[in-house]
Amino acid sequence: MQIAIVGLGRMGGNMARRLRRAGLEVVAYNRNGSVTDALAAETGLQAVHSLEELIQALPAPRIVWLMLPAGDATQQHIDQLVPLLSAGDVLVDGGNAFYKDSMARGQALAAQGLHFVDAGVSGGVWGLDNGYALMVGGADEAVQRLEPFLKALAPAPDKGWLHCGPVGSGHFVKMVHNGIEYGMMQAFAEGFALLKGREDFDLDLAAVAEMWRHGSVVRSWLLDLTADFLKQDQELADVAPVVADSGEGRWTAMEAIEQGVPAPVISLALAMRFASQGRNDYPAKLLAMMRKGFGGHFVATQGGDA
Amino acid sequence: MQIAIVGLGRMGGNMARRLRRAGLEVVAYNRNGSVTDALAAETGLQAVHSLEELIQALPAPRIVWLMLPAGDATQQHIDQLVPLLSAGDVLVDGGNAFYKDSMARGQALAAQGLHFVDAGVSGGVWGLDNGYALMVGGADEAVQRLEPFLKALAPAPDKGWLHCGPVGSGHFVKMVHNGIEYGMMQAFAEGFALLKGREDFDLDLAAVAEMWRHGSVVRSWLLDLTADFLKQDQELADVAPVVADSGEGRWTAMEAIEQGVPAPVISLALAMRFASQGRNDYPAKLLAMMRKGFGGHFVATQGGDA
Amino acid sequence: MQIAIVGLGRMGGNMARRLRRAGLEVVAYNRNGSVTDALAAETGLQAVHSLEELIQALPAPRIVWLMLPAGDATQQHIDQLVPLLSAGDVLVDGGNAFYKDSMARGQALAAQGLHFVDAGVSGGVWGLDNGYALMVGGADEAVQRLEPFLKALAPAPDKGWLHCGPVGSGHFVKMVHNGIEYGMMQAFAEGFALLKGREDFDLDLAAVAEMWRHGSVVRSWLLDLTADFLKQDQELADVAPVVADSGEGRWTAMEAIEQGVPAPVISLALAMRFASQGRNDYPAKLLAMMRKGFGGHFVATQGGDA
Amino acid sequence: MQIAIVGLGRMGGNMARRLRRAGLEVVAYNRNGSVTDALAAETGLQAVHSLEELIQALPAPRIVWLMLPAGDATQQHIDQLVPLLSAGDVLVDGGNAFYKDSMARGQALAAQGLHFVDAGVSGGVWGLDNGYALMVGGADEAVQRLEPFLKALAPAPDKGWLHCGPVGSGHFVKMVHNGIEYGMMQAFAEGFALLKGREDFDLDLAAVAEMWRHGSVVRSWLLDLTADFLKQDQELADVAPVVADSGEGRWTAMEAIEQGVPAPVISLALAMRFASQGRNDYPAKLLAMMRKGFGGHFVATQGGDA
Repeated sequence: MQIAIVGLGRMGGNMARRLRRAGLEVVAYNRNGSVTDALAAETGLQAVHSLEELIQALPAPRIVWLMLPAGDATQQHIDQLVPLLSAGDVLVDGGNAFYKDSMARGQALAAQGLHFVDAGVSGGVWGLDNGYALMVGGADEAVQRLEPFLKALAPAPDKGWLHCGPVGSGHFVKMVHNGIEYGMMQAFAEGFALLKGREDFDLDLAAVAEMWRHGSVVRSWLLDLTADFLKQDQELADVAPVVADSGEGRWTAMEAIEQGVPAPVISLALAMRFASQGRNDYPAKLLAMMRKGFGGHFVATQGGDA
Repeated sequence: MQIAIVGLGRMGGNMARRLRRAGLEVVAYNRNGSVTDALAAETGLQAVHSLEELIQALPAPRIVWLMLPAGDATQQHIDQLVPLLSAGDVLVDGGNAFYKDSMARGQALAAQGLHFVDAGVSGGVWGLDNGYALMVGGADEAVQRLEPFLKALAPAPDKGWLHCGPVGSGHFVKMVHNGIEYGMMQAFAEGFALLKGREDFDLDLAAVAEMWRHGSVVRSWLLDLTADFLKQDQELADVAPVVADSGEGRWTAMEAIEQGVPAPVISLALAMRFASQGRNDYPAKLLAMMRKGFGGHFVATQGGDA
Repeated sequence: MQIAIVGLGRMGGNMARRLRRAGLEVVAYNRNGSVTDALAAETGLQAVHSLEELIQALPAPRIVWLMLPAGDATQQHIDQLVPLLSAGDVLVDGGNAFYKDSMARGQALAAQGLHFVDAGVSGGVWGLDNGYALMVGGADEAVQRLEPFLKALAPAPDKGWLHCGPVGSGHFVKMVHNGIEYGMMQAFAEGFALLKGREDFDLDLAAVAEMWRHGSVVRSWLLDLTADFLKQDQELADVAPVVADSGEGRWTAMEAIEQGVPAPVISLALAMRFASQGRNDYPAKLLAMMRKGFGGHFVATQGGDA
Repeated sequence: MQIAIVGLGRMGGNMARRLRRAGLEVVAYNRNGSVTDALAAETGLQAVHSLEELIQALPAPRIVWLMLPAGDATQQHIDQLVPLLSAGDVLVDGGNAFYKDSMARGQALAAQGLHFVDAGVSGGVWGLDNGYALMVGGADEAVQRLEPFLKALAPAPDKGWLHCGPVGSGHFVKMVHNGIEYGMMQAFAEGFALLKGREDFDLDLAAVAEMWRHGSVVRSWLLDLTADFLKQDQELADVAPVVADSGEGRWTAMEAIEQGVPAPVISLALAMRFASQGRNDYPAKLLAMMRKGFGGHFVATQGGDA
């Protein structure tokens, strides 16, 4: 029982480690081969240095799990792999992809006799020790063949992984997961900002976070992480107030519009990240000018006294 | 070491039980005395049937913990208790109150030589077994005398309770806690609605919730509860789509405005509860009429074919 | 100088009337021919009863303006028209379409030697008398040939129409126009609801609206319309609280996400329409169940006492 | 028929001018007397240099209209004026005040036999020529005595002013007016930002704004102003992206919470102003740290490469 992993970045590397800890056989490929070799030395996995070699190293029917950054890399690797694979092989995309793209990918690969499975993977850098939550979409036959690996990657063999439904449903459930995550994060950010804003109480935010971790309604893993970093520093003077956003948040907000379902919290959590990236500057300038227009209000100039 | 509890409703009753389980002595009063007697029979606490009797049952300096519903009840009981108390006694309000009211209450009671402590209590019906998160505001001297009881009520003696700061800070931290809770709940509600809305995937929402409980970024106690009820019923056909709101959510949203801090997620979570209560009906009627006004769009009538 | 109009519904019919009032020659086709005949009798336009007849009635180079409901009708008519048209003819889509679809349409038609112009038309039922705002995208040559008709349709020959840019830009500007409209409408709806909610002031909302029309910062055409209908009825007891939404609002909210620009007001105005359509019911049910889960809060049942 | 005006700033000065243009007699006082003298020279109004002189210059029953900046100035002037006034005199507050404060003020003054009228005034720097919208709260008797002045200040004698209801209702209606204004402004700001964001269309925002002024659904005075300044500069490179907020916006958002009415557009328009003032920085820093916590995402440092 073997699995091939393509892509040994932060996520893929740790997943390979966790599979090896469970005693499973892993063949791995990474564009930068020195990463592969180091991981082979560390974990005993089988390093290969080309996709051709990867395919040759695995007897059919194969499982090839792609763990590549969002963008064009996944499709490029699939295009290279397809001619090398045999009918019945299973190709897994464990990266973040738009679920409709995954559905299209599944159809295209099915037409060539290949199984496609989309796997949403959550857990971040903590997944190595805690296990990953895995949201899997694909045909029963394909997902069943993945089960030994899913059980090893998950926090426990019967916990934290789910065959959600057909191809696309895995990335769909992961997308919504991340949308919820945006909302929860923003809720905590607003709350802690309000705690800090009431300066006369001089609250110890780290102590509040730690206390809430036990018995409160808001106890959660995100709170655990927040308590962790607040213990180090609660002023955050050196942190830039800029929050990146990723595809999943945008896709979730768009899905809500497409479904016609109100999702104000997810949508606004996303919008506030845009604002943090300086994308509220032009609207704000327009508002300043309108106020000047009707009220003669002072408009500050850049670099001025605003 | 004794404590008096006034109010044996869902929260107060269970708190008395938890204190008794820890072997602490409790004197209790409830307006409906049969509740007090039943709890005395169950737990061995000392039942009293008037506030006068309550005060006589406790040697000074006393600790009297009020656990009354939001509204006028707390002030009414304080007004009755003050003449009975002695200088140095500690009066605790464990109910939900606006923190500025608590600050005023603390000042008024201090003028009469009494200690006031505001204690935000989180944990709901699960607190009996899991322990409560306790957010406490008051003078060091007063809070120190509460410690044995706080340690018994909390999930563990050194976890889940915090002396936040001066009088008012306990209810303030609890208020913000509930604001965050509003945002987290709404985030989950939006996410599960999106999962359900993608009907072609025919997702098992209970299974998704259960899977997310392990290894995912959104794992949390609110998710645990959600997984619980979704296992029973995920259609919720018999549940009315009406969500009550409480003072804390409103106060948190107002606090954000007063501080000038953007809190869109907390504010919108609150607004969606208002909408669920039918408070979006008049704005919606106005919009329907505006659309008719400029576009000749059809306006449905009540009971009609809308 | 002739123009053909295809589609004589609420918009197309009035646009034909306005063109005839300006003395311009119009050939018109409508699926239901009796509408065409009636409009011919009323305005002296030339009625035709098939697309073939329409094309034969116009000397090349032709201008054919489609004014069809959103959906598949426009593409179906274009598919029928293309084989009948000659190189250099101009096809105008005056309906509401997603600007990226219009861009694709423009490319496809250009490949066949035809000009495509996308024209966003605003003004609703009032356009007949007041003129329409026209947002036009297309090649210079094509738009120049439309000018006499644009000048007649607009409120004044030099006001209210704009050649915005290349194909797609007309529908893009119209889309954003409607997004702004959503936000403005919602702002008024919220404001009037607040006026009504302060019952002790017993305000006459019609009188307030009328007063604001003169000298206030919020004076606007939407306020004019609102003042109109409030004079008839400000209780709106018979109006169903349901607000339809159209493609433009959704597209604008999605555009903001795609651009990464915060557009909370437009997004929320859209979300509140979704809520008015009953699409907040499932999230609200989930919230009610969560509250029950942690707090033992009462959950009303459908048809029950909520 | 005389009126006294106290406060000759941007608003009060122009109101005095407009009253003089209508041939009405005005006695005026300003803290800085040179302003009063200049205005007297310009308009023929009667300059006084103390509140005592002001009162002596007017025969009872008097009308004294305060036009002072928000803050403590109004109450300070009222405290000085009350001992000088006679029973039956009318004191008008034309500044921006919280309507509940105005209600309290009205009660306090009524107890001393004085009439109080709260007058919300809209129109900004354009009011001098266009007239002001006036929203007036007070007893019938008092408002009737103001009528000649209201008719002169308004755009037309029978347009743009309204006796809304009892004391407080004038400032209440003005507050809601400003809340709506916040929402409308934000809707325009978002829309124009989206137009600008689609760079490939290279839209001329000034031309779009000008076109929309004629025949479109969004035509409005705010759009007129926007078209004006966009003609000068649509890049706004020198404008700081900072938008001030005033009491009315905050009060309206709080009123919605108090009434339990969803007002997402007004609330979010306010929140985005807070964000423009740098008040989203701490929440954004927390989010950046949370992302680092679970995903190992890079966190930029201040002054660094974010």
